[in-house]
Amino acid sequence: RINGERLWQSLMEMAKIGATEKGGVCRLALTDLDRQGRDLFVRWCKEAGCTVSVDRMGNIFARRPGRDNSLPPIGTGSHLDSQPTGGKFDGVYGVLAGLEVIRTLNDMNYETAAPVEVVVWTNEEGSRFAPAMVASGVFAGVFDEEYGLTRKDLDGKTMGEELQRIGYAGDLPVGGRKFGAFFEAHIEQGPILEAEQKTIGIVQGAQGQRWYEITMTGQEAHAGPTPMRRRKDALLGASRIVHEVNRIGLAHQPYACATVGLMQVSPNSRNTIPGKVFFTVDFRHPDDATLSKMDAELRACASRIAEEIGLQLQLEQIWYSPPVAFDKACVSAVQSGAETLGYENMPIISGAGHDSCYIARVAPTAMVFVPCADGISHNEVESATPRDIAAGCNVLLQAMIARANA
Amino acid sequence: RINGERLWQSLMEMAKIGATEKGGVCRLALTDLDRQGRDLFVRWCKEAGCTVSVDRMGNIFARRPGRDNSLPPIGTGSHLDSQPTGGKFDGVYGVLAGLEVIRTLNDMNYETAAPVEVVVWTNEEGSRFAPAMVASGVFAGVFDEEYGLTRKDLDGKTMGEELQRIGYAGDLPVGGRKFGAFFEAHIEQGPILEAEQKTIGIVQGAQGQRWYEITMTGQEAHAGPTPMRRRKDALLGASRIVHEVNRIGLAHQPYACATVGLMQVSPNSRNTIPGKVFFTVDFRHPDDATLSKMDAELRACASRIAEEIGLQLQLEQIWYSPPVAFDKACVSAVQSGAETLGYENMPIISGAGHDSCYIARVAPTAMVFVPCADGISHNEVESATPRDIAAGCNVLLQAMIARANA
Ligand SMILES: NC(=O)NCCC(=O)O
Ligand SMILES: NC(=O)NCCC(=O)O
Repeated sequence: RINGERLWQSLMEMAKIGATEKGGVCRLALTDLDRQGRDLFVRWCKEAGCTVSVDRMGNIFARRPGRDNSLPPIGTGSHLDSQPTGGKFDGVYGVLAGLEVIRTLNDMNYETAAPVEVVVWTNEEGSRFAPAMVASGVFAGVFDEEYGLTRKDLDGKTMGEELQRIGYAGDLPVGGRKFGAFFEAHIEQGPILEAEQKTIGIVQGAQGQRWYEITMTGQEAHAGPTPMRRRKDALLGASRIVHEVNRIGLAHQPYACATVGLMQVSPNSRNTIPGKVFFTVDFRHPDDATLSKMDAELRACASRIAEEIGLQLQLEQIWYSPPVAFDKACVSAVQSGAETLGYENMPIISGAGHDSCYIARVAPTAMVFVPCADGISHNEVESATPRDIAAGCNVLLQAMIARANA
Repeated sequence: RINGERLWQSLMEMAKIGATEKGGVCRLALTDLDRQGRDLFVRWCKEAGCTVSVDRMGNIFARRPGRDNSLPPIGTGSHLDSQPTGGKFDGVYGVLAGLEVIRTLNDMNYETAAPVEVVVWTNEEGSRFAPAMVASGVFAGVFDEEYGLTRKDLDGKTMGEELQRIGYAGDLPVGGRKFGAFFEAHIEQGPILEAEQKTIGIVQGAQGQRWYEITMTGQEAHAGPTPMRRRKDALLGASRIVHEVNRIGLAHQPYACATVGLMQVSPNSRNTIPGKVFFTVDFRHPDDATLSKMDAELRACASRIAEEIGLQLQLEQIWYSPPVAFDKACVSAVQSGAETLGYENMPIISGAGHDSCYIARVAPTAMVFVPCADGISHNEVESATPRDIAAGCNVLLQAMIARANA
């Protein structure tokens, strides 16, 4: 059994880095705060006797040797970056649950056959730099390194520059590292486990996602003397698409999710008709064919709206992450762990993307979910109980030991 | 007759300050660029023999003495600040047309009975600091000085601080200065004169305006695992209001204008459902009763939309500028000037607000409009012909001389 108190303390300690007034965390990828979080993690890992290495995408690997170090390690981990209005658990739970597994093995003087590694993946959130899961994607060969290092934030800074700046541009090549298996603990970030009163979600896979960037260009003009019929109002166009995106989400219930999360209006002046609006669309569905239908519907309505208002339309799908099915044996290992420990559990599909979705392409992978209050995440009020947090880590420990000794 | 070439050269010289790549101007109120524009104007006025003074709102008065300096001066002028995507003529034309009148009087060695003054009013645009026409409003007693000096930009900087910083917090008290009459030359900023092929618009008055600030607050949540029916998406609410604002504008045709020009989304992250959106509404109508109807419709639809989505609504009217009728005698002076010079002209109502709308409360006031290409303003492509620019200034000269000697 892991030490739930120690794990909780570590979570609360890490949550001080980037703590917000409303009790959440803002620790955007590759900021100074991200560096502080990484430094703390590295210190803790070294104190736990691990050797730490960093690859060129800034992914951190903390290794606890096994009896046979020629065996591929059993990996676990997640991310330390957060949303602008993030919580104390999203990502960091998976990282510190991994560290707690190592600390527990140390406490027990337990030697696994295969080594164990805890990984911090860079920029999972996709908030400062789009898309999400960039560095685990490079690791898994989904993106090339050039692509990863050149992702830009809204100010034009690249991941490569920012990795250099915070001192986490490592020298290990990205990828090529074999894992015997990979497990990731995470809060569910949705309402299902709580509604079903289950402690553990046995994650079967994740829904698919499509992300878009849309720019609508009209014509700036004076809000006063410009008659309504002469306007090319880019914000009117963007607003109608927001409405349609919501309608597309509702049209593919149950399961579909459709969101416009980011919008930038230009010139953003009260008495000037907006000439340009940049915004994003996030579509999700567990069924790839439905996701394709949503894509077609978006393109159709965006073209129609642009034409109606006389706007130029630029619509680009910048990311496609297909639905993922996790490795059956790894999923079973998670389920056995939950059963052995007597936790109420249920199978679940992840609504969010996770680094494990990409790692699943290069290693047998599965995930462990625990409930979060009201199903709320990407919000400063995100919360989870010490009991559930400990339970998920205990399941992780069971699954990892089972695989490390298999 | 004024020197059209000299006026044009001065306009082009001033347009270098804050020049944008697309041929426009970005010279936001009380920025360093605004200071540079003011400095150039002051230098030119001094070279033309004027005495220059500045009041506590940063309004600049350049005075050319008359024969009888106990007579109230005949004023003219406009503003030097611009929109973020502004043009070379909006405001600055009225200022430099005033200077050209003085230069012409100097060339002719012409002594008017009353003194003549050219005024630069601070922050007419209302873009960096809302509302528009703040400093002419304080001058006219519509706002008190405290209100004027505490207007904030989106970064929280006040007009008072920024006036100090750029060295234009003068020591003259604001207002109380009598004008025998006030005239303002301006581009129309709308399509009417061009469509009617008239050189001069005899401005009868201006339509009314209501400006609003709206904040919708919902709940940040993860774009992936949060089911559509559990969302409180503030951007969905704001987008529906944008659509309704447009509908309200269309419902009160002809004449009504309705615009959302500014929107800020929070946390503005692609995969987080927006928890808060701040945006503005700009309503205009020449008829005050219709403007009130538009107000009621906005309030009703905003409440309905907020309730439907489960959002908190904060809606505040931050500015009301009623329809204005200019002084009949001053309007006649403008008309006589146009007729004398043989310019095709027509009566027109201003779609935009102007400093003259407030000055009309404390002095007999009228305006001269000239056409601008395609009726486009608040846009970097804003343009006007040297011929029309000179014509408007000639009319201004006629009207001012007539009143200065009356
Ligand atoms: N787990 C998580 O919040 N991932 C961010 C990527 C996504 O939006 O799915
Ligand atoms: N003339 C002008 O552009 N004024 C700005 C104030 C308004 O929006 O009417």
